Amino acid sequence: MLAAIATLKVKEGAEEDFLAVAKELVAAVNANEPGCQFYQIYKGDEPRTFVFIERYENEAATEAHRASEHFKTIGARMGPFMAGRPDVLRLSEA
Amino acid sequence: MLAAIATLKVKEGAEEDFLAVAKELVAAVNANEPGCQFYQIYKGDEPRTFVFIERYENEAATEAHRASEHFKTIGARMGPFMAGRPDVLRLSEA
Repeated sequence: MLAAIATLKVKEGAEEDFLAVAKELVAAVNANEPGCQFYQIYKGDEPRTFVFIERYENEAATEAHRASEHFKTIGARMGPFMAGRPDVLRLSEA
Repeated sequence: MLAAIATLKVKEGAEEDFLAVAKELVAAVNANEPGCQFYQIYKGDEPRTFVFIERYENEAATEAHRASEHFKTIGARMGPFMAGRPDVLRLSEA
């Protein structure tokens, strides 16, 4: 049981454009990754802050996620809206 | 759709004791809170770092969680093992 919390800060005025692309990614992951148990985007309390909560069955499933065509192509389209690199917290079964 | 990410740092040597109590809380929440859709404890990559991932149906469910007897009594028992206050990130539907 693995999880990741990816916190992203977006550029001023880019919230809606970012979110449209992020939701495409959420839909693609949920439709195409059987080893991904949960993948959703949330808004944080801080302005322009968004957080992906991700849960995977095992390490192979997280690798399949990162290697997927949808993660690469849709992820690249989120880049221009982001203010800096995402902060990713990797979690494992306690 | 609401979520919370609570990051906790525990005292050196207190990992196992902390985790035993944290797992009691996980079991109590999952058994008694119909409005809580997910509640689990994870280990972080950093030493002595644990993270609760929590998802709730709505605000009433998060309030019911915080007001619950199990959260208060089991939560209080985690206190002595913790190195400082938890860092809680509150998230809402994006």
